[in-house]
Amino acid sequence: MQMTAEELQAFLARDFGQVAADFRVERADAAGLCLRLRVEGRHLRPGGTVSGPAMFGLADVAMYLAILARIGPVALAVTTNCAIDFMRKPAAGRDLLAEARVLKLGRVLAVGDVLIFSEGEDQPVARAGLTYSIPPK
Amino acid sequence: MQMTAEELQAFLARDFGQVAADFRVERADAAGLCLRLRVEGRHLRPGGTVSGPAMFGLADVAMYLAILARIGPVALAVTTNCAIDFMRKPAAGRDLLAEARVLKLGRVLAVGDVLIFSEGEDQPVARAGLTYSIPPK
Amino acid sequence: MQMTAEELQAFLARDFGQVAADFRVERADAAGLCLRLRVEGRHLRPGGTVSGPAMFGLADVAMYLAILARIGPVALAVTTNCAIDFMRKPAAGRDLLAEARVLKLGRVLAVGDVLIFSEGEDQPVARAGLTYSIPPK
Amino acid sequence: MQMTAEELQAFLARDFGQVAADFRVERADAAGLCLRLRVEGRHLRPGGTVSGPAMFGLADVAMYLAILARIGPVALAVTTNCAIDFMRKPAAGRDLLAEARVLKLGRVLAVGDVLIFSEGEDQPVARAGLTYSIPPK
Repeated sequence: MQMTAEELQAFLARDFGQVAADFRVERADAAGLCLRLRVEGRHLRPGGTVSGPAMFGLADVAMYLAILARIGPVALAVTTNCAIDFMRKPAAGRDLLAEARVLKLGRVLAVGDVLIFSEGEDQPVARAGLTYSIPPK
Repeated sequence: MQMTAEELQAFLARDFGQVAADFRVERADAAGLCLRLRVEGRHLRPGGTVSGPAMFGLADVAMYLAILARIGPVALAVTTNCAIDFMRKPAAGRDLLAEARVLKLGRVLAVGDVLIFSEGEDQPVARAGLTYSIPPK
Repeated sequence: MQMTAEELQAFLARDFGQVAADFRVERADAAGLCLRLRVEGRHLRPGGTVSGPAMFGLADVAMYLAILARIGPVALAVTTNCAIDFMRKPAAGRDLLAEARVLKLGRVLAVGDVLIFSEGEDQPVARAGLTYSIPPK
Repeated sequence: MQMTAEELQAFLARDFGQVAADFRVERADAAGLCLRLRVEGRHLRPGGTVSGPAMFGLADVAMYLAILARIGPVALAVTTNCAIDFMRKPAAGRDLLAEARVLKLGRVLAVGDVLIFSEGEDQPVARAGLTYSIPPK
């Protein structure tokens, strides 16, 4: 691993100041990364459920950080593709936890997947597969 | 068509007050729907490019409204799947325009696709395929 | 579980006679299902690598059987969506093994994902997320 | 355009002899490429409908040829991602026609989408978005 959970959190605060406060890196190790979305009113849709874009953003940031944990701080990696399935309504009033794992770390592409859970639940609310393009050094 | 561009805009303002001001329905007809994202600072990532979640949200709302234009106001249709490709960096300081078309309108599922452009450009910045689940009447 | 590995294999032989000989159900339990593709010349592309359609077919059948293991023999479940990432070249001259798990089993939709490995390797060659539509009883 | 429909057909026959007889390039121009799948018994599932893998293969080859039409014969371009929606049952006893268009042709990635129709029908049976990795020269 090139970066710890603390280093990833600091990277997020420095380079993504706008959204960093929404997220907390719970764990980063060889098995993957767990990222928390602190759910606030601005993430909700009418009815109190977390919005699709907020879940997409959680999956996207979780995979980004899972890649950085392996390759070090490369601010220019960009998402090229995401396929996301929304499976259940998130539980009201709970944070979301994303479990991301990197399945391939190539020279130009990284691929991984993410499961999103309402905290305390064991059935996922969403799953996503993501591809990132890694800039040449 | 069950709803005009004006009716869709009014529906958005009433049921999605939080995000309605971000969007303007430019056109809704048999060929599909065009939705504008008025790009503001909160949609941007460092470097001035529109964020992935903002583009995802634009694609998602555009497809939702394209379906409603065909079936009338069904507030409970939910996104079950989205596959999105990010192809180019959006042009700085421009609104985004999403062109959505419904490819299938079934009893329980609706499927369509969306192309997203920076205003004034003819090469798309993103494309998405989306599936919505339609609640039983 | 509604069906064992043996029952699933028998179902495949009876209802999908054309392709049944390609596949062997290695395991079916609460954690998911493992399906083997016995790689033959007809599955290969020039250069000796397994073709994309053969891998897609493996993922599709593995998820189908993983759903049937849970709900019993419902011959009419149909794939509505598949997002597949091809990550590595399969090893030459090896069978492929698909590990499928069901993430959601709803009234009308089932969602799951699949990892595909060359036998004896621990890095996946492909991953897929699939949605099936389940016919009303 | 770097290759005509006839040149693409000849390329297919030479480099993909196994499957070339299944396909006919109907058109290749700046707007995209149309590829026919000559439907035979081996492409069918029980009930007489074209199988998912056969449709996946059609989409995949159509996009591959659409890219080659633009960049010339690069036998090593590989599919990295495909998201496909199956929307309707193909009509029995009809060929399938795939309409492919290239949406991005980058240095390392090409992205496009495909609509598949039963010949003579105007509602698509499937749609797909595909990404190809282009080898360095």
